Amino acid sequence: MLITVYLIAITAEAMSGALAAGRRRMDMFGVALIAFVTALGGGTVRDILLGHFPVSWTQHPEYIYLTVCAGLSTMLIARFMHHLRELFLVLDAAGLVAFTIIGCNTALEMGYSLPIVIIAGLITGVFGGVMRDMLCGQVPLVLKHELYASVSLLVALLYLALDHYQIPADITLLAVFSTGLAIRLSAVRWGWTLPVFEYANEHW
Amino acid sequence: MLITVYLIAITAEAMSGALAAGRRRMDMFGVALIAFVTALGGGTVRDILLGHFPVSWTQHPEYIYLTVCAGLSTMLIARFMHHLRELFLVLDAAGLVAFTIIGCNTALEMGYSLPIVIIAGLITGVFGGVMRDMLCGQVPLVLKHELYASVSLLVALLYLALDHYQIPADITLLAVFSTGLAIRLSAVRWGWTLPVFEYANEHW
Amino acid sequence: MLITVYLIAITAEAMSGALAAGRRRMDMFGVALIAFVTALGGGTVRDILLGHFPVSWTQHPEYIYLTVCAGLSTMLIARFMHHLRELFLVLDAAGLVAFTIIGCNTALEMGYSLPIVIIAGLITGVFGGVMRDMLCGQVPLVLKHELYASVSLLVALLYLALDHYQIPADITLLAVFSTGLAIRLSAVRWGWTLPVFEYANEHW
Repeated sequence: MLITVYLIAITAEAMSGALAAGRRRMDMFGVALIAFVTALGGGTVRDILLGHFPVSWTQHPEYIYLTVCAGLSTMLIARFMHHLRELFLVLDAAGLVAFTIIGCNTALEMGYSLPIVIIAGLITGVFGGVMRDMLCGQVPLVLKHELYASVSLLVALLYLALDHYQIPADITLLAVFSTGLAIRLSAVRWGWTLPVFEYANEHW
Repeated sequence: MLITVYLIAITAEAMSGALAAGRRRMDMFGVALIAFVTALGGGTVRDILLGHFPVSWTQHPEYIYLTVCAGLSTMLIARFMHHLRELFLVLDAAGLVAFTIIGCNTALEMGYSLPIVIIAGLITGVFGGVMRDMLCGQVPLVLKHELYASVSLLVALLYLALDHYQIPADITLLAVFSTGLAIRLSAVRWGWTLPVFEYANEHW
Repeated sequence: MLITVYLIAITAEAMSGALAAGRRRMDMFGVALIAFVTALGGGTVRDILLGHFPVSWTQHPEYIYLTVCAGLSTMLIARFMHHLRELFLVLDAAGLVAFTIIGCNTALEMGYSLPIVIIAGLITGVFGGVMRDMLCGQVPLVLKHELYASVSLLVALLYLALDHYQIPADITLLAVFSTGLAIRLSAVRWGWTLPVFEYANEHW
């Protein structure tokens, strides 16, 4: 089940990355690269930071084909996609949960300590979007507002807690996905945000 | 021969990186760093993604001296360089081909599958420029227009095809360089581009 | 002693990173991430480039807590911090020296050649700030002016020279810190800069 959600999620992330590339009037190569980076960049940063070689997608060329094709197809169907905004919000939220769990598992299997496991989950969930925004010349959205990284953090904590008490995997996944989706979609619906830090002094 | 072209190419890339730094009014350190990153950044990203340690330039301090000196010399001779625009276009195109082949070879030697070998070639060819543009605060040019990454992709495919049919190395290099240079220079001359994706909806 | 200076320095760097995040009106997550990256990003880039796995902070969760807490506390005490500008200049300079020495030591222990040892020191000293500026959407300050990277370079050279002549560690550290602090603070006080490269030709 996690793999299915993961494949749907990287497709959705790749398509949202392609739209961001389209907003910057990139060419086909730019669209394909941003799609790939948005979908697989978080896992790549995680693998490199954890010293987890070979990096995951180098062993799964099908992920590359999937994300690049999803990105390029978006060029054709973009005009119809605003009808699907809500569907994509749900897929993106499901992806955030799946990415976070997969990131935690990677670090767990390598024997890292709990704080690093949580950070590995967060990075997998969040850094694809960070790299997309930086390649598009923008300050990463996830640093500015929206409850996004926080959802990833909560998902990681909940997942590790349930794992610790040896709850069966099915129930754990069900609980983590429903909680993660509920919080993320509520955050979007009601505009929940974290406190913002404003500091006006440019010189120091 | 490939090494000679490589050394000329990293020198030319370092000098073009230094000009980009000069456009942003950077100091000597900025110029040296941008020169180094433009010339050797693509290979560095490739080595890290493939888990190819030690990273190439850490075993070749002469590459570091060469690119840093080329960058700093550019500060002195920049005023004469617009006469050499066409020469640099050719050197840059030759560099793109050389970088791509070297990138493919690195991945081949490590036993990666063909799609990863091609991507390793592309990254080596293209990412020095991506990192230069990002450090200069610009959306990477290679994502926007110009047939640049596509040339790298074609070069990688042609190189691997000739390699597969065990064509002698000299002929392979000759064929790949002449094809790559011809396409790249034609693309610049006649303004060939890939289709651009425009998507105006900022909200979704 | 080096460890004490290091802990004080990453705290100070985290707080200055948090102020930069505040200037971009980031939320709590953005502040925590920028604080972490500013303080520990240089060492992370060094570890990855040298193939030094596991990356240092993954073995020291206390560094993560320290930098994240320092960043978040800055949100509360920012309004009082302009009184402490001079203190932070000194802490930042001491941090630059400590980061550089630690970076050199990491590369020395791994048996890298001298040029790579020096570059490892420079990267550790400088790249936290580079990554902070890039995440904040700015061209890295260290590439533009201020004698900052140069101080790191001088510190690395002096440290390796004293190490080569087997000067006792206490005296070496004393000499390196006093020289580094003196140059850095003089550079700030009297506005010392490196020559700047201006190149106006946008087209080539």
